[in-house]
Amino acid sequence: MAAVDGLIVSIDAMGGDNAPDAIVAGVALSRERHPYVGFQLHGDPARLQPLVQAKKYLADAKDVVIVPASDVVGMADKPSAALRRGKETSMWRAIDAVREGKAKAVVSAGNTGALMAMSLFQLRTMAGIARPAIAAIWPTMRGQSIVLDVGANASADARQLVEFAVMGEAFARSIYGLDSPSLGLLNVGTEEIKGNEDVKAAAQMLRELKLPIDFRGFVEGDDISAGTVDVVVTDGFTGNIALKAAEGTAKLVAKYLRDAMRRSFLSKLGGFFAAGAFNTLRMKMDPRSVNGGVLLGLNGISVKSHGSADALSFATAVDLAIDLVKHGLIDKINHDIARMAAAIPATGQSTGQA
Amino acid sequence: MAAVDGLIVSIDAMGGDNAPDAIVAGVALSRERHPYVGFQLHGDPARLQPLVQAKKYLADAKDVVIVPASDVVGMADKPSAALRRGKETSMWRAIDAVREGKAKAVVSAGNTGALMAMSLFQLRTMAGIARPAIAAIWPTMRGQSIVLDVGANASADARQLVEFAVMGEAFARSIYGLDSPSLGLLNVGTEEIKGNEDVKAAAQMLRELKLPIDFRGFVEGDDISAGTVDVVVTDGFTGNIALKAAEGTAKLVAKYLRDAMRRSFLSKLGGFFAAGAFNTLRMKMDPRSVNGGVLLGLNGISVKSHGSADALSFATAVDLAIDLVKHGLIDKINHDIARMAAAIPATGQSTGQA
Repeated sequence: MAAVDGLIVSIDAMGGDNAPDAIVAGVALSRERHPYVGFQLHGDPARLQPLVQAKKYLADAKDVVIVPASDVVGMADKPSAALRRGKETSMWRAIDAVREGKAKAVVSAGNTGALMAMSLFQLRTMAGIARPAIAAIWPTMRGQSIVLDVGANASADARQLVEFAVMGEAFARSIYGLDSPSLGLLNVGTEEIKGNEDVKAAAQMLRELKLPIDFRGFVEGDDISAGTVDVVVTDGFTGNIALKAAEGTAKLVAKYLRDAMRRSFLSKLGGFFAAGAFNTLRMKMDPRSVNGGVLLGLNGISVKSHGSADALSFATAVDLAIDLVKHGLIDKINHDIARMAAAIPATGQSTGQA
Repeated sequence: MAAVDGLIVSIDAMGGDNAPDAIVAGVALSRERHPYVGFQLHGDPARLQPLVQAKKYLADAKDVVIVPASDVVGMADKPSAALRRGKETSMWRAIDAVREGKAKAVVSAGNTGALMAMSLFQLRTMAGIARPAIAAIWPTMRGQSIVLDVGANASADARQLVEFAVMGEAFARSIYGLDSPSLGLLNVGTEEIKGNEDVKAAAQMLRELKLPIDFRGFVEGDDISAGTVDVVVTDGFTGNIALKAAEGTAKLVAKYLRDAMRRSFLSKLGGFFAAGAFNTLRMKMDPRSVNGGVLLGLNGISVKSHGSADALSFATAVDLAIDLVKHGLIDKINHDIARMAAAIPATGQSTGQA
């Protein structure tokens, strides 16, 4: 673990519906698993101090520090307003620690739009990347897949989709240890003629650039949960709606199951005996177990936890941030984007507009 | 039932993975429920005749006729090729019966793209409609909602989204008997500033045109299954991916449940007692119970059944077609689109490009 000595993660301790209690408890859980990782907790010292002192893995630790921040970004604040007036917020300060090199990653359960705007403003987009993307971890029949963009942008042209592909592939290598993750472009059909112009042009670029990416062509909406590929690339509008449509469907099926189990004496009896199985199912379907969207394409790692994160959920997001630092995600993306830029001919910039 | 005397439905009896057996059996099921409806079965008489004669509700009925068609559209045929060379197919002939006024609606479980292309070519788009849309019936926490477009177009501008809204609203009134179905535009957030330009411009049009539509603004992906509104409007790219992402998620959750129930003796015992409840759940999740996508915006009713439809599933699609004819869907849409066109100022055509 010598390579990660001095690894510090910066925490927006006041962001999220259950902050700061769930945030500090989540950091404690993660620290129990990663005792070599230090933490900066940004927020109100009067509230954070007693929470930290109550946790065995945090109390009196030299590398767990509280950094005062007097303000908090509201969950309903507009990103533009937060950006203008938010310099004293715990979110801004937490990101700033990464910008200054005092921490390797930032984790926040706060306002997504504000985190996106502030991270973009402070950490800046990497050279060669037009726009960052939010990557989500999606449970599948085969385990997990990465889906991006799930909401950083309202649209994406072909060149941007290829950038998302490069970033998502590096992300999958970092967290799953895969040598060559498979990758697909989300489309309405697998036939060549289908889909919109941007998606078709992106597929052509991915084929012609001959990047070392295992590009499998187009995949459809049901291929995401099927786990057909390790990385699914789409624009932020479609990706966000697909993600939320899937979440809504999981809730609907859970309701159907509850209703069905309540229907008769026999089904209630069955439910009693199968209680363990239902708990397993609940855990499988629990969004907390795959919590953490990552902003890719910035000069630093910025992880978004669900706004309603509890301690367990927030710890998962912190673990993810630690994993990405340990596996050198930023260096991997920098390397791959440079290679992509070299592969694109001088006129390549306009391919996306063809 | 005097109003529907002489109602004839035209059937592509050779389209779909299980044709013609499942198709004829499905028509028999629907006819049992709607004995006043006549049918034209287009396809190979040598194969259809014995199937029809074996069904109590079809055999020897004067208003159930087999119309010979020597060719079949393949499930993998390209729509353009089917359109050029498909004049002798059962699909073409079935649609042609509607064009000629010999039938009020056509139902096919065949190639979606070909059905779309042939229906568009033969039935033509209604006056005032730029492009037809495919409407799907989506199960929700509150019952069902209509989602359109789920795949007829790879994109949609603001004006087209408003046309989809008008058509979807008329559709919901027709099948649910609602006086004023609620309607939302699918977007990545409910804040005014979010989303792409087309969606924002469509929302503005829906507010400013003051059509008699209960427009509730933006809805997000998880609002579909929640049943937040009766009609969800989106472009065909996003709608198709959302629909398939939801189908994939339902399959994933079903797999989780099966795995969980197999895990221990107690859970297996529980599963035994709860078998009835699981059957109820399976039926709830069965896509056959909400089968049938409808092509809206044409001068005739064209219903697409799942390619893998069995008899029960195909009957659901036929029932839907009958319902839409009975409730005068085409007249409703014609009326509402004319009203919309009247509400749009002379420069309205370009609003979508603003």
